[in-house]
Formats: sequence, structure tokens, C-alpha cells
Amino acid sequence: MNGTIGVGLIGTGYMGKCHALAWNSVKAVFGDGPKPRLVHLAEVSSDLAARRAEEFGFARATSDWRALIADPEVEVVSITTPNAFHAEMAIAALEAGKHVWCEKPMATAFADAERMAQAARVSGRIAILGYNYIQNPMIRHVGGLLEEGAIGTVNHIRVEMDEDFMADPQALFYWKSEVSSGYGALDDFAVHPLSLLRVLFGGVRRVFAHMSKPYADRPTREGGRRAVETYDVASVLFELENGASGVLCVNRSAWGRKGRIALQIFGSTGSIVYDQERMNEVQLYTSADRPTEQGYRTILAAPHHAPYDRFIPAPGHGLGFNDLKIVEAHELLNAITGQPARVIDFAQGLEIERTVHAMARSHGEGGWVEVEG
Amino acid sequence: MNGTIGVGLIGTGYMGKCHALAWNSVKAVFGDGPKPRLVHLAEVSSDLAARRAEEFGFARATSDWRALIADPEVEVVSITTPNAFHAEMAIAALEAGKHVWCEKPMATAFADAERMAQAARVSGRIAILGYNYIQNPMIRHVGGLLEEGAIGTVNHIRVEMDEDFMADPQALFYWKSEVSSGYGALDDFAVHPLSLLRVLFGGVRRVFAHMSKPYADRPTREGGRRAVETYDVASVLFELENGASGVLCVNRSAWGRKGRIALQIFGSTGSIVYDQERMNEVQLYTSADRPTEQGYRTILAAPHHAPYDRFIPAPGHGLGFNDLKIVEAHELLNAITGQPARVIDFAQGLEIERTVHAMARSHGEGGWVEVEG
Amino acid sequence: MNGTIGVGLIGTGYMGKCHALAWNSVKAVFGDGPKPRLVHLAEVSSDLAARRAEEFGFARATSDWRALIADPEVEVVSITTPNAFHAEMAIAALEAGKHVWCEKPMATAFADAERMAQAARVSGRIAILGYNYIQNPMIRHVGGLLEEGAIGTVNHIRVEMDEDFMADPQALFYWKSEVSSGYGALDDFAVHPLSLLRVLFGGVRRVFAHMSKPYADRPTREGGRRAVETYDVASVLFELENGASGVLCVNRSAWGRKGRIALQIFGSTGSIVYDQERMNEVQLYTSADRPTEQGYRTILAAPHHAPYDRFIPAPGHGLGFNDLKIVEAHELLNAITGQPARVIDFAQGLEIERTVHAMARSHGEGGWVEVEG
Amino acid sequence: MNGTIGVGLIGTGYMGKCHALAWNSVKAVFGDGPKPRLVHLAEVSSDLAARRAEEFGFARATSDWRALIADPEVEVVSITTPNAFHAEMAIAALEAGKHVWCEKPMATAFADAERMAQAARVSGRIAILGYNYIQNPMIRHVGGLLEEGAIGTVNHIRVEMDEDFMADPQALFYWKSEVSSGYGALDDFAVHPLSLLRVLFGGVRRVFAHMSKPYADRPTREGGRRAVETYDVASVLFELENGASGVLCVNRSAWGRKGRIALQIFGSTGSIVYDQERMNEVQLYTSADRPTEQGYRTILAAPHHAPYDRFIPAPGHGLGFNDLKIVEAHELLNAITGQPARVIDFAQGLEIERTVHAMARSHGEGGWVEVEG
Repeated sequence: MNGTIGVGLIGTGYMGKCHALAWNSVKAVFGDGPKPRLVHLAEVSSDLAARRAEEFGFARATSDWRALIADPEVEVVSITTPNAFHAEMAIAALEAGKHVWCEKPMATAFADAERMAQAARVSGRIAILGYNYIQNPMIRHVGGLLEEGAIGTVNHIRVEMDEDFMADPQALFYWKSEVSSGYGALDDFAVHPLSLLRVLFGGVRRVFAHMSKPYADRPTREGGRRAVETYDVASVLFELENGASGVLCVNRSAWGRKGRIALQIFGSTGSIVYDQERMNEVQLYTSADRPTEQGYRTILAAPHHAPYDRFIPAPGHGLGFNDLKIVEAHELLNAITGQPARVIDFAQGLEIERTVHAMARSHGEGGWVEVEG
Repeated sequence: MNGTIGVGLIGTGYMGKCHALAWNSVKAVFGDGPKPRLVHLAEVSSDLAARRAEEFGFARATSDWRALIADPEVEVVSITTPNAFHAEMAIAALEAGKHVWCEKPMATAFADAERMAQAARVSGRIAILGYNYIQNPMIRHVGGLLEEGAIGTVNHIRVEMDEDFMADPQALFYWKSEVSSGYGALDDFAVHPLSLLRVLFGGVRRVFAHMSKPYADRPTREGGRRAVETYDVASVLFELENGASGVLCVNRSAWGRKGRIALQIFGSTGSIVYDQERMNEVQLYTSADRPTEQGYRTILAAPHHAPYDRFIPAPGHGLGFNDLKIVEAHELLNAITGQPARVIDFAQGLEIERTVHAMARSHGEGGWVEVEG
Repeated sequence: MNGTIGVGLIGTGYMGKCHALAWNSVKAVFGDGPKPRLVHLAEVSSDLAARRAEEFGFARATSDWRALIADPEVEVVSITTPNAFHAEMAIAALEAGKHVWCEKPMATAFADAERMAQAARVSGRIAILGYNYIQNPMIRHVGGLLEEGAIGTVNHIRVEMDEDFMADPQALFYWKSEVSSGYGALDDFAVHPLSLLRVLFGGVRRVFAHMSKPYADRPTREGGRRAVETYDVASVLFELENGASGVLCVNRSAWGRKGRIALQIFGSTGSIVYDQERMNEVQLYTSADRPTEQGYRTILAAPHHAPYDRFIPAPGHGLGFNDLKIVEAHELLNAITGQPARVIDFAQGLEIERTVHAMARSHGEGGWVEVEG
Repeated sequence: MNGTIGVGLIGTGYMGKCHALAWNSVKAVFGDGPKPRLVHLAEVSSDLAARRAEEFGFARATSDWRALIADPEVEVVSITTPNAFHAEMAIAALEAGKHVWCEKPMATAFADAERMAQAARVSGRIAILGYNYIQNPMIRHVGGLLEEGAIGTVNHIRVEMDEDFMADPQALFYWKSEVSSGYGALDDFAVHPLSLLRVLFGGVRRVFAHMSKPYADRPTREGGRRAVETYDVASVLFELENGASGVLCVNRSAWGRKGRIALQIFGSTGSIVYDQERMNEVQLYTSADRPTEQGYRTILAAPHHAPYDRFIPAPGHGLGFNDLKIVEAHELLNAITGQPARVIDFAQGLEIERTVHAMARSHGEGGWVEVEG
């Protein structure tokens, strides 16, 4: 009755492995929906492809991703290759009638993202992006609290995303400091907070951004120094379409921060605070509590915060980063089988890309830029 | 090239699903060792067995666990049934030449635990217990820090394990309040902290415990009240074989605590603090830091804390409770393939049981009891 | 219209200065009660006495504490000298008709404490001990919450008091390691948690303690080593007169802990957690909150937590350790002027001492000891 | 031997009481400098003035602040009246040859602030503003760490100041919502973070601000509604003169925040995090720690963080908000007696005001505004 679904996976790095784990576990975790059959895996070399296929449990391996897309048994394709390949692969897969699960960001050029969205629209297939943080049961619970008005009308939001993988000034110049890789922290990070804003609040109306470079240059492998072309830090003022004001800060040179995505949501009767580094907790303050006992409640993830219950029947035991991808796989299957699904599809992903590009433009222009969809 | 290993799973509840997920993922996560073939699954009814086999990916299903043990393709058996069944099943499996992965606690009676340890010894097979908390990379890192003397010589330890699933006094009387289920918090919880003490410090020399009942009686389904026979709270003074003193507190009626296992380890040059509710963090204080900047460091789990790196290449992104079981599966496979492994085997498990029973005895006697192994 | 009250101060060290600050500020903070006139100050030398009198604002200075007690203008005497002098000075002051504010612990010998309590009883004067932690508005609020049943019936309590001033094994042997100074952590620290238990819950019925020595010996000034005679660590199981069970842990060699007094109070409908190192916060968990939003609330000290409002009209701005002494001075003045007062008087202080000595006895006997008042 | 100094106090509200407590305690706490003689106190009515003089310990009381300024015994004047009076009183006091300790902000109009700074320059007297947060030993320690390069070169800063006293949308319209009171959060709050930036980093080069109104209107006492004219929320991008980029966020309608002043300072080798709601702690992350043990250290205030030692000889016991004012009084006395002093004088205060006004202008102009001093 639920049948199966044939899966292809292109790329087996960080995110590729994460997809593989999700495909392996989604049926056991959720117990419903079609059972993934791991059909075909593509990697740059035949050897690596074969090795990963054995580890990840895929039946066939190839170094030719087009062969994978041509495989009639493959019904859905995970694309986890470097960003520059997303457009070509996703469009090819959609044109071949496959559903697509593509890692974010959509593409390195906005025009490519537009073509991807167009291809998805034309295909009638499901095409989603790997915005896994929206799948955290605690974020879903935040959404539920907002919907029922637990903190009243939201009027101000702050969101920060910080890591420190570019923090060492002695680290060698590499492609992430080249302008061809994008703006910097803005496209690396800002898309994640924007995915959260989108599922929680909807679209962004206008933005004003400032970007900065912590380090003017970096040592090169050859012993010299080379000027840094990208911005590791970006700070953005914004207004949402719903009228709330906000601040978005991203920094990939933030010593000490490892996976921080910190949300502060202020409403007319309370506030909510969240930090991805403690992803199994959310803080709620409500002015409905008796004044002498008002205070932020540290709510631990528990079975009543769906779909935590599908993973663990006991509260406070903790989901992990990889579990979010399993939830994402399940939502994708929901979408494919025509059920309500919590996903960022290519159309919504394009709006996120549009917002990022508007931010970059505002930096150059020194004034507010409207985000026109 | 590492071949495969045939897996059988008995029981598909909380821990059964957790084992299934681990067996499904261990090869993809670690990339080494034999690849599990999910051969046979047993549940109480044929229907449920069939459904779970489909969900979890097992080839065959049965309502007769002895058929599973007799299956020649099964090489290792996961036993996740209620505690009262552990002894019979584990011993049968060992006698049939299978390796055994049995959930804790070993058994409801100490004599059964002794028989299990004896069966394991005789069999020459690997037999381990599901003490998953020892597999947390942060706990492993604590062990490494202790070994290299990062906090000097440990002289005092406090450990607490608290949840609140028995905290509601209006909850109906059920089997966990019957004396036939054991002592109460002591066997439910104390075994976990003892598993941590064992891998970090070795054995316990003597104990003095006090147990108490938060609620004298509970409502029954029939509308009356029934006296509670077990102790939801236990507090224990202890001395380790290495001479350190300590306190162990367990409480399964602790409102607000969901999965707390809180360690405080004091040494001659520093201290370490840990709480399972924030399982991706460990706190280290060292007097080697400059005095004006001494303070507990909140260390986030990262790839350099093996085997976190096998799950996620980026720091601070967080493992979950279920991931610990994947590590445990990997350690079990290490043991089976003759490599060094971090496990609590039946012999060590028996020492943990012995310590729990000594605690209970000390409560009755009102004095210290030596734990003689 | 409230008149004034003449104050004498004996001792100007840590606590002496703290008393002086409190006497200087109590009227300005609270605005009510008699205004302290700083009349007479005694120190070991005339020079030091004169200097401190000028700094602290006392009119007269002496090196003869008996002269201070004989001073007819002195109506209340602060005694902040080393513990060994408390009994003689307090008794002399009471016999001279003065009220007494004596630092804790009462005395080095239990018989002395009994004589002090007897002298207080006979004198008809107010005689209190400097248990300042009970004066924290957050602790007072905890008391209010318990009284109104905010967490139901309390059934289990854990309390820890830890500092690290004895943690360095290289620190020279000094009088605190001599048996003549007392038991060690038990009398240094345990009295504070016991003062909190007393105001929140009443008396202790029976105790079982274990004491240990982190370091067997310490270097001496002369270059040798000397065996440590006191216990830096003590752990105690106890039962309150109200039937609740509990654990008390004290450690003055706890690297990293600076002023920790950590309370965990478990009741039938919630729990309360507190740590003196964050003295402006208290954590409340109540099962009356909607299940999906249950969590510990971090309540920040605010004007509605009396008498915080006397210090600061804005919430969350924070009181300090010295402020607690100002509250204590105010409660003492309340007692002197015949109003309800929150104090530990000599009679209650004697019960605290009795409990500490029972703990020490239980360590020697290896069994429970009843605390008979 | 250090003599005395005559003190006058105008205003006895929140800050007036705080000054009074500081004047009463500064000599006892620090032991050095001139001893304050509390000479003259002014309040709006003679009755209130007399009552406060008795409570606070002032010798004379008046309802005529000019009489206080004319009092030859008064050498330094504390001005703690509503902001609109600061300019007139401070200038009068300076012209009368008094030193001035004026609460912040300087004045309601920038021209007034300029006249105050001018009067101070001409007078040759000490004139400082009550920026107490810079006096926290932990902030002083942060400054020391920055100076010695503990986190390398600072390249990015985030600072937030949030309270919730305007958060209730049902609260009646009052003067703080009138434009005559200023911009809103910007002048209420932004000055505090700016005082911290100034002592830690120096001046601000350019700013871009956005202000918003959480509530468009508020109920009036008469039963109607009135449009809110001020901005409870402001968010600012800025660049420091030293080149670092930053973000400043202020919100006086931030439910749940009580006294939050949160600093995040990112440097080339580490970072520092601080929150005024936990004012006795600072977090330091340094990449000089061994990688596997890198993490934010929670450093508790201790005697080695001067001048904590003047208040308490034991670490981790905690200063309070009012203690900061005592430190401020001491620094003022240092300045008066010609010693190095950590103060924000009127000249520096003017720069802070200039920055705030530049922020407001940038909001109107929708672009960056240079802060020209």
C-alpha cells in the first residue's frame, strides 16, 4: 500500500552522507509513507562511488550523474554536490521527471536559481531545498506558539548566525575568500535564518545591509599574501511584510561560535528565544504568568513536540543535527505523496535568494532596498 | 570487503526501534566494519512482527523468538524485551553461539544476572549491555581528560540522575510501584551513573544508601488507593576503589528533570561538570589557566571529539540520543571483530548489578556495605 | 520619630566591614526604623581601631572590647571576631544589656554555643546570628512559594555548598587543617545550608554523614609536610522533621566553585532550583503550566520580591552579597523594635550547631544519628 | 588625614537614593580619599526634603536647589533630577565652583548638552555623568583583556540593551510616548552601550539607524486612544573609528528582558561575551586554548578583578547594581583629587549625545550619517 520509492544520490560529502542516513532511517523512524529503495549513487570517481554505495547501502554506483538521472528506477534525486552544479543537475533531473531534493543555497547565480524555479514549475514534480533547521521540532513548536498568539503580535525580531570556520587570520587563502564564491557570510549563512523567518513569519519587505571584512588579506600557499574578496561579516536591518522590524547578523569569523543560530522574537504579550547550539531547548516568556513568577521557561524537546515522538518516547533526551534531515526526508515524501508538507520548495527558495541579493545591493547603494518578488 | 553480519532483533518498543535505527545506520556512519544484514525480527504477535520488519527493513519476521535464535543466518541478537525476559533469551542466544546485545538492566534477579555472565563466559561470544551514555563523545573526552591528568587526581564525585515520569501523585498505581519490579529508582536509574563511574574510574568499594517514597499511596483504576511498594528516590554515599568519595542521587519523581544525568568531578587541579540534558557540552575548570581568567569552559562537541566526526564534520551541530546507540553498535562490531572496544560486557554489567544490590542492602541495614566482587 | 540606636562594632575584617556597610546604609535603604548612630569600634590595636573608625564612620575607637561593651551609648553590638571569641564577647554584651549581632558559626565548642543561647534567654535581649543568605529576596520568595503550595508538598531536597579556597594541594598547611579549628567543611559550610533549610522547612530529624580528605598532607612553611587533620569534604543524608528526605554536600576544595550554594527542592506538583552564584535568579518548574510549555522559569529578582524594591525600583538589576547584610541589619532592628523579624536567633542557631555535631558523630559511628533538640 | 568633602544632593528618586547610598559607603568600602560630609539635600517640597535628609543622613534640607548650590560647605553636587533640569542645575553648580556628578543623559536638547560641556570646560571643575555600567569590575576586566590583546584585534561588535517597562500595550499613554521626551529607546538606552563602547574602544565614526514602534497607539486615562510618538525599538549599524563594524540594538518593549546589556566582541584570536543581567560573569573564548578544550569560560567576579576586592575578599559572592555607584563615587573623588579616574566627563558625554543624534538623523535620511565631533 505504501509501496516504495527509488532514490538516487549525487554527491557523498557532508550533506551527501546526511541524505544517505536520512534515506536509510526515515521509514524506521516514521513507520509510514513509501519505503526508500536506495537505487543509484553518483560520485566523481567510480572507485569512490562504489565504496560509498557499499557503505550507504545503494544498489548501483556511477561516476556519471547523468546515468543516475537516466535510471528509470530512480524516482527522487538527492543533489548534494558543490553549489555551482545544482542548477544543471536539478534541471536535468526535473526534466527527466524526477522529484528533486537539492541542498541549499540554490545556485551561485540568481539567474540559475530562476531557471531552477522555472524548471520545477514546468515539471509538476516536487522540488525542495535542504533547509533542515525549519524541521527542528522546537522551531515547529515556536511556529505553533506564534500561530495561537502565545506571545501576541510579533513586532520585532533579531536573528544571528555565527560560526568560526573562517576566524583564524593565519588560515590560508582559499576559494571561500574569492569573489567568485559569492558575497561571503551573506550567501553562506543568511539563507538559513531567512528560511526560519519564512516559515515563521513570511516574506521580507525591505533590507539594509552592511558587510565587512575582518581580515584584509590572508597568507597564500606560495608564501605571499592575497587580498580577501568576500565579506565574512554581514549585518542587516529589515522589515517584514507583516510590518515587524528586525535585525539579521551573520559572521563566519566569530571565534567561539560553532553552530549558533540565535532567534529573539518579541511580541505584544511575551517573547521567545532560541539558539541552535542548544537545539533541544526553547525559551518562552509570557506576561500571562503571575508577575512574581514571570521568567523565561527553558522548554526541553519532548514527545508532545511532534515529530520528536517518532524518534524517542521519553522527553529531554535530545535529537541531533542529523535527525533533522530525517524529518526533512519525511516531509519530502509527504509532499511527493500529496500530503501537507513543511518544506521550502524552489519557488520559496527563489524568494530567499532574491532577499539575499537585495541585501548585497543595499550594501553597495548605502540605502534601503525593497525586496520585490 | 569487510563482509556482512546477520542481525536478529527481539522486541521493537523504545529500545527495539533504537537498535533498529543503529543497525540501519552504523555502516553509513562509520564506513568500516562488517555491514549488518537485517535478517530476522521477533515480536509478540506475527502481525506486529511483520509490520515492524517492513518498517525497520528486516527480511524475516516471527512471533517466536526461539525461531529467530535458531536462524543460522543470525549472528548477533539484539534483546530489547522487558527486563524479566533478558536472562532466558540472552542465555539461549549465547548457547546457540550468537553474540548478544542486551538492554540494561541485565535482569530482575541478581541470580539471573550471574547466570547470564556465566553463560557469556562459557560461550566465548561477545555479550554486551546497552549502556549507551558511555558512548557519548563528550563522556569519552572526559575520560581522556582524566587519563592525561587534566584535573589532577580525582578526590570527589557527585552524580545525579533524575526524571519525572513518576512525579505526578495523581497518576494511577502501575507495575513500577510494585515491589516485584525491583527497588525503584535504584535499579531503574542507578545503573546508568554506575556505568559512567565504571568507565571513568573503575569499581565501587562500599556504599551507604537511603531510599524514600515521595508518595505513600496512589489511586487505582478501581477508584481506591494502593500503597506504593517501591522507592522513587534514592541517595547514596560511596567510596570508589581508587579512594575517592562520592554521592549518587537518583529520583524518578523529580518534576522538571527529563533526562538529567549530572556529573561533578573534583580533582586536585580542576573539575569537570556534565549534564546529559545538554549532552553536547562539557564544562572544564582548570587551575592551570591564568587566575584572572579561570572559569568553567563550555566545550561544545566537535569533530576532534571522536567519534563525533563520523556523524558531522562541523563542530557544535549536535548529536542526539539515538546517535549514541549507533556508536554502541559500532563498538559492539569492534568487539566482535576482535578490536579494542568500549563496552560494558556481561562481566562488568554483573559488577554494576552487584553494586546496586549492595546499595539496597545498606538501606535496610542502616550502615555501610562493602561491594565484594 | 523613630529615634536612633547606638551601635558598637567588634572586629573589622571581612565581616566587620560588611556590618559597618550595613549600619551605614540600612536607614537610607529602608527609610524606617531607628537610625543607627555609629558609636564605638573595637580592634586589636588602637591604631587600626582609629583608622577603621574614621573609614567606617564610628565616633570612638578602642583596642579594649570590654570598654566598648561598657559604653552606655552602645545599645547593640556587632561581633565579627574569630569564632573562638564569640562566646565570651556575646555573653558579656548580653549581660551588659546589649542586643547582639554575632557572626556565625556561634562558637567553636558546642558547650559555648549552649552558654550563649542560655545567656540570650536570660538577658531578654535580641541576639541573632549572621546567616545572611536567608535574607536574599529570592530565598524569601522561595519560602513564599513553598507556603502557598506552588510546588505542592515537598518530598526531597538536595543542597550543596562549595568553594575552592582549600582546593590547591600545594597551598601551605595552616590552621584550617588543624583539628582544633573544627571538623572542616562541616562547620565551615554546613551551617549555611542548614540555615536555609531551617527557614524554609524547619528542623532536621536525623543525619548520616561521611567526611573525606582530598589531600592527606600539605607542605609546611618549614619545607616538610604535615598530615591534614580536618575534612574538606562532607556528604550527608538527612531526614527533615516534616518527613522529607535529603542530601547535603559541602566541599571547600571544589575547584571552580566560588560561592555555590545550590538548592534543589522537589515537591508533588513542581520543583525549585537555586544557586547562590546567581543569587538574583531562581528557577521554578510547575506542572500546572500547559504540558507543551512546561520548563524551568528563570525568575529574575525584581521589586515585587521584597525587599528588593527598597534597593532598586527596576527589575533585573541585581543585588549584591553586601546588600544581604543590609537586609539582615533591618531585620535585626525589626526584632529590637518588637516587630516580626526574619532572623536566626541564638536558640535556632543552637539547633543548627546541634545538627552539625550530630553529623560529625554519625561519621564516626557509621550509622544514622538522631538530632535531639 | 585625607580630609573631607562637602556633598549636596538634588533629587532623591531612583538615582538620588543610589547617589546617597554611594556617598554613605564610599569611604568605608575604599578606605582612601576624602570622607564625604553629607551637607545639603534638595527636593521639590520642604517636607520630603527633610524626611529624605534624615533617612540619607544629610545635615540640611531645602526645597530650593539654588540654596544648596549657594551653600559654601557644598563642594560637589549630585544632580539626579529629571533630565530636563540637568542643564540649568549643572551649569549653575559649575559656575558656583562646585564639582558636578550629573545623571545621564546629559540633557533633552543637544544644544543644552553643548552648553553643559562648555560650562565644565570653563569652570575647571570636575563634571562627570552617571554612566555606572562602565564601573563594573567585569567590564573593567574586559577592557584589560582587550588592551593586552587577549582576543587579538577586535573586528566586530554587537551590543543589545533591552528592558520591558514599555512592553505592555495596555499600559496607559504617558510622557515617555510623547515626542517631547526624545526619540524613545535611542536616548533612553543607547547612551549606556555607547558609554561602554567609548571606554572599551573609543569613538563611533558613522551610523545607520532604523527605529520602530511596536504599538501605534495606547489607551489614555480618559478612555480614548492616543498615537505613540516615540520609538521603543531602535537598531543601528555602525563603524568605529578604529575600523571595527558593529550592531547596536535597543528595545524598551522587550518582554522578558529586565536589565539586559549584552555585549559580543569578536577579535582575531578570540571573543568576549557579557550580559548585565548576570553582571558578575564574563565569558571569554580564546583560540590559544588547546583545540579540544576550547570553549567559553564563565569567569566569576573575584577579588583579582579590581575593585571587587574592596567590597568582598571572597570570589564569586557577587556585587550588585548599587555597588557600581559606589565605585563611580570613588572614581569621581579620584578625579577631584587629581588622580587617574575612570569617568565619562561632560566632554565625552557630549560625544555620546552627538552619536545618538546622528543615529536619529540617519533614520530620517535612510542612509549612513558620519558622527563628526
